[in-house]
Amino acid sequence: GALGGLGLGLWRWRQAAMAASEEDEKEEEELRQRFMAPPVSGLRELRRRRRELRSRMELLIMETQGEVCRALAALDPGAAFAVDTWERKEGGGGISCVLQDGEVFEKAGVNVSVVYGLLSEEAARQMRSRGKSLKAKDGKLPFCAMGVSSVIHPKNPHVPTMHFNYRYFEIEEADGTKQWWFGGGTDLTPTYLNEEDAVHFHKTLKEACDKHDLKLYPKYKKWCDDYFYIKHRGERRGIGGIFFDDVDSPSKEEVFQFVKSCAKAVVPCYVPIVKRHCHDSFTPEEKQWQQLRRGRYVEFNLVYDRGTKFGLLTPGSRIESILMSLPLTARWEYMHTPPESSKEAEILEVLRNPKDWVH
Amino acid sequence: GALGGLGLGLWRWRQAAMAASEEDEKEEEELRQRFMAPPVSGLRELRRRRRELRSRMELLIMETQGEVCRALAALDPGAAFAVDTWERKEGGGGISCVLQDGEVFEKAGVNVSVVYGLLSEEAARQMRSRGKSLKAKDGKLPFCAMGVSSVIHPKNPHVPTMHFNYRYFEIEEADGTKQWWFGGGTDLTPTYLNEEDAVHFHKTLKEACDKHDLKLYPKYKKWCDDYFYIKHRGERRGIGGIFFDDVDSPSKEEVFQFVKSCAKAVVPCYVPIVKRHCHDSFTPEEKQWQQLRRGRYVEFNLVYDRGTKFGLLTPGSRIESILMSLPLTARWEYMHTPPESSKEAEILEVLRNPKDWVH
Repeated sequence: GALGGLGLGLWRWRQAAMAASEEDEKEEEELRQRFMAPPVSGLRELRRRRRELRSRMELLIMETQGEVCRALAALDPGAAFAVDTWERKEGGGGISCVLQDGEVFEKAGVNVSVVYGLLSEEAARQMRSRGKSLKAKDGKLPFCAMGVSSVIHPKNPHVPTMHFNYRYFEIEEADGTKQWWFGGGTDLTPTYLNEEDAVHFHKTLKEACDKHDLKLYPKYKKWCDDYFYIKHRGERRGIGGIFFDDVDSPSKEEVFQFVKSCAKAVVPCYVPIVKRHCHDSFTPEEKQWQQLRRGRYVEFNLVYDRGTKFGLLTPGSRIESILMSLPLTARWEYMHTPPESSKEAEILEVLRNPKDWVH
Repeated sequence: GALGGLGLGLWRWRQAAMAASEEDEKEEEELRQRFMAPPVSGLRELRRRRRELRSRMELLIMETQGEVCRALAALDPGAAFAVDTWERKEGGGGISCVLQDGEVFEKAGVNVSVVYGLLSEEAARQMRSRGKSLKAKDGKLPFCAMGVSSVIHPKNPHVPTMHFNYRYFEIEEADGTKQWWFGGGTDLTPTYLNEEDAVHFHKTLKEACDKHDLKLYPKYKKWCDDYFYIKHRGERRGIGGIFFDDVDSPSKEEVFQFVKSCAKAVVPCYVPIVKRHCHDSFTPEEKQWQQLRRGRYVEFNLVYDRGTKFGLLTPGSRIESILMSLPLTARWEYMHTPPESSKEAEILEVLRNPKDWVH
């Protein structure tokens, strides 16, 4: 009767619970295979609070890391990504995937980091590009910062360097309100100009943006040209792409969906360009011009890049993961000027005066 | 009589004047041969106001440039210094001497600059390392800055990189008082530790300092170790030497004499070390370690060096002369750690924990 009924009810509940946990395990197993390493916050924990944006963003950056690493590894069959997981004493950690000295890639790094803890008001203010001030309780602000960032330096001077970064911040103020914002971008740094590649790259980014708001691509394309400016050279680092920072509108969900589209566009932006040129022949002079451009890349990253500067100054940050963005090799020649109307002068012209690649 | 006397007097005066100007011309000719190019302020002008410290300092930096270039060129007979003179639109100019891709030296630059004009109060404050504020008339301060600076990157990994810089500043405040100060230093960056070289280098510097005040060497040796610190690596750039900034006591004359001794010590500090090792054999692995250390050199110069940062931010400064300090080539490997008790670990140990080389 009642006991039997209870027994049956319990048995059914158990069955249902087992089925759910079997499904969970299957899903977990699938994620595990798509990720390069277990996520910083733990798979269980992420699935438990799966509705929170922090969790969805962490799953997205893990997924992006996996996608990009698999796509690149497939292009460079002899090489493999080394995977390092690291912990941050003050809270959080990361996963760094690096492929070094492959056939196709000289140095390719894809880094995930998820860090949290307490920030000083000053550090919090510096984190926001608009320098908005935040009110702390006892001078400290609980924060969480996460992102995926990557720089790919290929060997062949006809394959451009690519960089992308998508990140999310949360800071809790004294009154309990949460400030949040997203930042990110994808940009291309060719050694030589190839119009077809430039158009493909920008078009793919524009399509990702246009799904959300037609104003985004033109705005973030310009932001990118402005951001990657090497002031002392009067040149941009590359031919741009998109860049945005400190974005907190129209809504958390909408910005997240936009960031997701951008992250999903990384592989289709870049992989076709690598495939098209990784077997191009090149001269020692072309390789040398690539090395000089790598020198400029180092100049931008060490002198101007906010992320690098912020990282180098943040206690407990992982230097090797931050400086992963530097090329394997670079070169500086005194007073190097390419001859007029050369292919070297052609790319310089575009770096000095950015072009619109899609309309 | 009277007229004859006058005539004879005039004739004698003319003779004396001619003799003086002949002597002047001889002396000018001698200086011309010792300098790499005509000085920024002009030889006549410098000799006219030869009692002023500005002129004596300009002659000293020109002389130092000539001495160092000749000494280095003698070590690398196949190569020659290219000499560029440049003007600064806002006032002054400079002379850059660069030897690139020689047999012994990969890149050796010796640069003189003499610039003047008007500074904002903020820029003037930043120029003084102690951040002392200066009172301007109408917000602008007349200033004069001059110096000789040099970085020598040799090819052979057993020959260390050497850097020196000696500079002088003058700023005129609203009430007409002149603020002045000197800065400078000489330091060594070996790829591998050679104790004998380290001792010779520091001893030569100590002797130059000790002639003026026994307190100087220990003080400026420590300042050097502190200044050339790559914070994010927990390493110094090299094994140090001496460094000082914003020095304005005991007197202008005494500091100048000290700076002169330091400048004269550059060649005896460095040339014997180059001679001793420029024909040493080396392995590709040793060359690679040198390239990694060059990467660190770039990190220090672009991220921390006050002179480089100040130069990159100063309107009208000559970028090619500032970035002359960067090596021809550099390398960054992800997570490179030399094996324990290796020669690479030996130098790292000294870069992490600076030693006293002379007592």
